[in-house]
Amino acid sequence: MPALGNKLYFNFGGQGPLPSPSLAAISASFATIQELGPFSDAVWPYVNRTVSGLRQRLAAWFGVVPERVAFTENVTSGCVLPLWGLPWEPGDELLVGDAEHYGVVAALEELARRHQLRITSLAVADLTGDAAATAAAVSERLEAALSPRTRLVVLSHLLWNTGQTMPIAAVAAQLAGHARHPWLLVDAAQSLGSLPVAEAAAAADIYACTGHKWCCGPEGLGAVALSERLLEVSSPTLIGWRTLEHDGPGAGGYHRDARRFEVATSCTPLFAGLNQSLQLLEAEGDAHGRLAAIRKRSGQLWEGLQRMPGLHTLLEVPPPAGLVSFTMADAKGVPLDPAAVVKQLGDRGTWLRTLESPRCLRACTHLVSTADEVERLLTQLAELIQLSAG
Amino acid sequence: MPALGNKLYFNFGGQGPLPSPSLAAISASFATIQELGPFSDAVWPYVNRTVSGLRQRLAAWFGVVPERVAFTENVTSGCVLPLWGLPWEPGDELLVGDAEHYGVVAALEELARRHQLRITSLAVADLTGDAAATAAAVSERLEAALSPRTRLVVLSHLLWNTGQTMPIAAVAAQLAGHARHPWLLVDAAQSLGSLPVAEAAAAADIYACTGHKWCCGPEGLGAVALSERLLEVSSPTLIGWRTLEHDGPGAGGYHRDARRFEVATSCTPLFAGLNQSLQLLEAEGDAHGRLAAIRKRSGQLWEGLQRMPGLHTLLEVPPPAGLVSFTMADAKGVPLDPAAVVKQLGDRGTWLRTLESPRCLRACTHLVSTADEVERLLTQLAELIQLSAG
Repeated sequence: MPALGNKLYFNFGGQGPLPSPSLAAISASFATIQELGPFSDAVWPYVNRTVSGLRQRLAAWFGVVPERVAFTENVTSGCVLPLWGLPWEPGDELLVGDAEHYGVVAALEELARRHQLRITSLAVADLTGDAAATAAAVSERLEAALSPRTRLVVLSHLLWNTGQTMPIAAVAAQLAGHARHPWLLVDAAQSLGSLPVAEAAAAADIYACTGHKWCCGPEGLGAVALSERLLEVSSPTLIGWRTLEHDGPGAGGYHRDARRFEVATSCTPLFAGLNQSLQLLEAEGDAHGRLAAIRKRSGQLWEGLQRMPGLHTLLEVPPPAGLVSFTMADAKGVPLDPAAVVKQLGDRGTWLRTLESPRCLRACTHLVSTADEVERLLTQLAELIQLSAG
Repeated sequence: MPALGNKLYFNFGGQGPLPSPSLAAISASFATIQELGPFSDAVWPYVNRTVSGLRQRLAAWFGVVPERVAFTENVTSGCVLPLWGLPWEPGDELLVGDAEHYGVVAALEELARRHQLRITSLAVADLTGDAAATAAAVSERLEAALSPRTRLVVLSHLLWNTGQTMPIAAVAAQLAGHARHPWLLVDAAQSLGSLPVAEAAAAADIYACTGHKWCCGPEGLGAVALSERLLEVSSPTLIGWRTLEHDGPGAGGYHRDARRFEVATSCTPLFAGLNQSLQLLEAEGDAHGRLAAIRKRSGQLWEGLQRMPGLHTLLEVPPPAGLVSFTMADAKGVPLDPAAVVKQLGDRGTWLRTLESPRCLRACTHLVSTADEVERLLTQLAELIQLSAG
């Protein structure tokens, strides 16, 4: 991973480093397409094999049949496109977690504005305790928040700000018990490649992922797992040749499977790159083993932060995944500006990011993070606090 | 262009060959992003420079300000996304050319179904004469077809099947003279990189292109030029962080410029690749000079086809651009199956494609096509006809 050679990197939740074999796979795919085509009967078998190979691999990760997997350019498209063809009725309610990404929230607001839907909020950002307590609170709050008009529930699998995980499969089971059985949209931007996703992806109606964060694939390619009941009643909105069951005029019908949410020409070499990145992850162990390795480092970081005066982690317990969010204050308790901290660390070749709500810093650990790197980050943070006091 | 080293290539209208410098630019961009980031304050200036550099270059090609240019994954997205946020009223009519791509037609049908719009047809597929006669016929038919309810007119700049050009700027002027001033959507899949586009792109409301055909850029990146009047009244539908004017929660407002139709993470290296491909085209001369070179070869092919018994070109005059569509029949006048012809030519390393409506063959010539290559194609076609007689 060339990206890791010249810096201390903790922004895996922003974008993962691209392994050299994945970049090589992308370049080789471009070359193969040029050799066989780029547009010829000789190239289609290669293109189809590349796309369907990745679809099968991701379906296995998701624990669903390949027919439930659609490719998208990014996680936003995976979240939003399936929503626009659902049979909304004016007055329907969208129950949205209060820790969702502002992009998805903006998309839901536009959907609500056009279809006269109502957005209600489910508090989850304050759930900073252990998994059992969190699951119990989510269940209780969800039960209280659901109304007969609730038609959609929106939650991330792994909250991008607090780093808490949501009990997606349990939420799905709870929703199934309600008369209207609301759809469940899961923003899985932070989960594919970090958490075991099979149970949640199979249970959600829309489970939208990207390949460029925890999977360490190239930017510009994501995937979404869609439920069979959603596929039965939803229509595509952004329609192109890949949406349609047959080529040619009068093609008429959309794919009955998840491909009805695919659009038109994408960059095939990115599929080859993501497939390579996923294979590299698989070689590191199964999803549970990989999460344990991620948590070993995030736990180390979280523990180290507990010992530092002025440091406050958002989570009260060691992180359930690789996201560690925290605030900093100087010796007098005056908060340090997260943007200034990011800049000062960047000057040292160490990268983490700020978050706006709550205003804080976020450091991520991944499989490639070492104990030494975590220690060096802790040391640098301690130095910054000392500097601010001086 | 490695693609051209091992075949006779005439599918530029399907996908253009990627020049080696463009693939090198893509690889170098991936490497730069890894070196500076991939997610860091150090990488954003590079990403912004790459995206805005391409936006400025394309704006110059389009003859519009950069604020009117949005990037999309493909030409379909550029055509369809701007339509979904327009203020439709039930009963509005969409007047659609009868030579449009079936993907766009399917998208318009879904738009019409959901908003209770009516689709009407404008005959242009039968216009196979010279530019002046075509322009006169389009104007006359358009005047007859426009109704007080017409709210959108859909035409390609260069028809993908017959290879005829449409007088887009004149159509735009004609529409401006009508009380309701219908929107003009132009599918420019075949025009950017083949025709001079400035006049048409500036005149249309939606002028949607892709970089992977005549521009010889990578697949998976397109652009759309949008009119100011469209930007004033349209809302985005597929919304993500790139749609929003400011990052962060409560961001609220969409970009006022064309970026309101951009979505979320795309593959930045593809921008570097397309920029390189456009520079290579620019080095070959201005748009008018390049078209003249393209037409020299398409004219040679068209002339050669006129001289061959059993060959029938769709156009009655030498092509206005690089698309040459034709049918074949054996000595007894029995039509040859286009798919069989494509296969037989493919076995010889020569690539063109079939079209479904009308059922025919299409060969394209580009700047890189040589007189010798055109002669070899003509010879191979003559051989196939002889074989079919034997």
